[in-house]
Amino acid sequence: MAWITFLSDYGLDDEFVGVCHGVIARRCPDARVIDLAHGVPRGDVRAGAIVLRGAMAHVPAGVHLAVVDPGVGGERAAVALRACPAGAPERLLVGPDNGLLMPAADALGGVRDAVDIGASRERLEHVSSTFHGRDVFAPVAAALAAGAALADVGEPTDPQALAPLKLPVAVVGEHGVAAHVVHGDRFGNVILDASASQLLQAGIAPGGAVAVRSAGGGRAVHVAQYRDTFADVEEGGLLLYVDGLAMVALAVNGGSARERLGLEGNGELLLAPA
Amino acid sequence: MAWITFLSDYGLDDEFVGVCHGVIARRCPDARVIDLAHGVPRGDVRAGAIVLRGAMAHVPAGVHLAVVDPGVGGERAAVALRACPAGAPERLLVGPDNGLLMPAADALGGVRDAVDIGASRERLEHVSSTFHGRDVFAPVAAALAAGAALADVGEPTDPQALAPLKLPVAVVGEHGVAAHVVHGDRFGNVILDASASQLLQAGIAPGGAVAVRSAGGGRAVHVAQYRDTFADVEEGGLLLYVDGLAMVALAVNGGSARERLGLEGNGELLLAPA
Amino acid sequence: MAWITFLSDYGLDDEFVGVCHGVIARRCPDARVIDLAHGVPRGDVRAGAIVLRGAMAHVPAGVHLAVVDPGVGGERAAVALRACPAGAPERLLVGPDNGLLMPAADALGGVRDAVDIGASRERLEHVSSTFHGRDVFAPVAAALAAGAALADVGEPTDPQALAPLKLPVAVVGEHGVAAHVVHGDRFGNVILDASASQLLQAGIAPGGAVAVRSAGGGRAVHVAQYRDTFADVEEGGLLLYVDGLAMVALAVNGGSARERLGLEGNGELLLAPA
Repeated sequence: MAWITFLSDYGLDDEFVGVCHGVIARRCPDARVIDLAHGVPRGDVRAGAIVLRGAMAHVPAGVHLAVVDPGVGGERAAVALRACPAGAPERLLVGPDNGLLMPAADALGGVRDAVDIGASRERLEHVSSTFHGRDVFAPVAAALAAGAALADVGEPTDPQALAPLKLPVAVVGEHGVAAHVVHGDRFGNVILDASASQLLQAGIAPGGAVAVRSAGGGRAVHVAQYRDTFADVEEGGLLLYVDGLAMVALAVNGGSARERLGLEGNGELLLAPA
Repeated sequence: MAWITFLSDYGLDDEFVGVCHGVIARRCPDARVIDLAHGVPRGDVRAGAIVLRGAMAHVPAGVHLAVVDPGVGGERAAVALRACPAGAPERLLVGPDNGLLMPAADALGGVRDAVDIGASRERLEHVSSTFHGRDVFAPVAAALAAGAALADVGEPTDPQALAPLKLPVAVVGEHGVAAHVVHGDRFGNVILDASASQLLQAGIAPGGAVAVRSAGGGRAVHVAQYRDTFADVEEGGLLLYVDGLAMVALAVNGGSARERLGLEGNGELLLAPA
Repeated sequence: MAWITFLSDYGLDDEFVGVCHGVIARRCPDARVIDLAHGVPRGDVRAGAIVLRGAMAHVPAGVHLAVVDPGVGGERAAVALRACPAGAPERLLVGPDNGLLMPAADALGGVRDAVDIGASRERLEHVSSTFHGRDVFAPVAAALAAGAALADVGEPTDPQALAPLKLPVAVVGEHGVAAHVVHGDRFGNVILDASASQLLQAGIAPGGAVAVRSAGGGRAVHVAQYRDTFADVEEGGLLLYVDGLAMVALAVNGGSARERLGLEGNGELLLAPA
């Protein structure tokens, strides 16, 4: 069974994702493709990387194709990576060398081998300047799913030279935890880069109340309840919880934390005991 | 062939649906998953239940996974149900015990057996408080698709004690048929809970004109033509018809009945001969 | 391996697409379905036809189901077509006879045989007036994927009598190239019906600057750079390029060409050397 997971910022309104499925089916008809997510905000490499990393534990081992590629057609390299998690089947990651694949690779124990697939023999005959998902990444992913060796789909490149992903880091300080919004979802839930242990260091414990300030957003202080789940706060109440990926998150029961906090894009928040 | 149909309010912007596919693939690689709909309005158990019921006749028998779960992490139970329609293959329904599964189960002849899967051995090792689709429902659905018996995935529970779904009921009265909007679609079509026979009782017959009043919406009266299909009314005309699920519906040819009638959410309408 | 590609304007919010998958699975469980695109603008036969044609080269040969069907329930016929491209496997196209299938069929060498499937024996038992995707097109596509002959699913009809698709044609004139917007995508990129050779005839060559006027939109002149890809212009710069389907397109690096040009719907543009 050859599994390919596929994440992108292509959206599902257009034919981009469907055409990539077509390309994969032509090269590796037996591949089973799982659409992991295609609604990553356009060009948001960081959001795509966080989602990809978080999903690794829950999808079958196989080829993990990811395309959030604002630099398509430019200087960035295209790569395929191999990770060999201890005691688990190997994983292959395919995508642009812009940091998108790195958090997932790190979570899988790091990159063992890497190849540059920019001139892969598996590319489509005509390679456009704007749609490498179809012309480069999907056919290489399909070739790997069909059993091609990493060395057959590209030129060896130094894993140490891969572009890293610059992620902000939550910091515990005098006034609480300075955390960053790393991702939001359809429900208006807001996922932060803080950990439960950092909250504890700042005196924020489950069951308590938390003061939430937007770092750039004036003096408004919102008070969240640190609980397990939505139902633990009243309808419309602000909840701080540890989400399904073990990340600290904010939500409003039956509403949108993003709207409540007046967040636009990825901002910084200060969390302190209330 | 092990079929799983999957309905939710997760939307397709985020990775929720894709991650559930991953969990299913890990537990039952042979399962074939049909995404029935993931755009059910957030937390709208009634809309999800109507869609699920309507689809039963058109999807293969198998496991029917449905997650519209505003009470996740709270008191509501998680269940798997077995229905045995006369002269047809059995069906298994998996989801929260909040009424979501009941109209479908009723349409399939009722619940024969039920188990509580809240503490199922098939759950993922770590069960979050907010994402039971991934941690409880998907793995149980996959286990059933892989051939596990109902008794193996949960504790027997009384089918009579399952939470019912409170659906409004259309009523024929002196002034016409008081009906309720039970569902809307992308095209602005509005599906009601009235039946064609109720319309007849109120003197509304195919080919005629129908006065439509919004119960809470002032005195505006819209006149619809009771016809077979969109093309039977002029461009922009309001149409009353019996839809693909045998439910009475309102549409505007080339437009949106929801906008025309000024409907927000699920309202009540009064239908009378015009 | 029986491939079905599926394109429609049903969107993914509702259950329309999922129910069609169910119908296909019941008739031909072995079929593998690729969702090509379901976000075609509602009723936009031309946009659907362009996408379908463009995808033919990238999807496996098989049955190509397409439903953009504003005349459902009216006079338009329902058809299944066979195309036999030289030196390549045959393709079967299924959909309404409103021109939707014709550009794809033409790209595949033209229609060899056609049948009218309006009264096909493969239709569902109850055929609604509004949802022929489920009741007519999907079951016929599934029957063909299962190996049914074209003659078994409908009545022979004259390929010459099929409804054509009226497409605008870009024209080279004294003042430049008058081109039409044939399609837009999520990114705000705008695809035109002009070809690179028409641009050359008008004195517009790669590397140069292009004056873009909206035919109906006042005097505003936008200057685009004719380059290979997004990264070749500055952030926010307007780019003219030849897209992945060999069509001339306009884009804004990191933005929306549709917004920049103030385009609504499908307009006409005049391109000239700047």
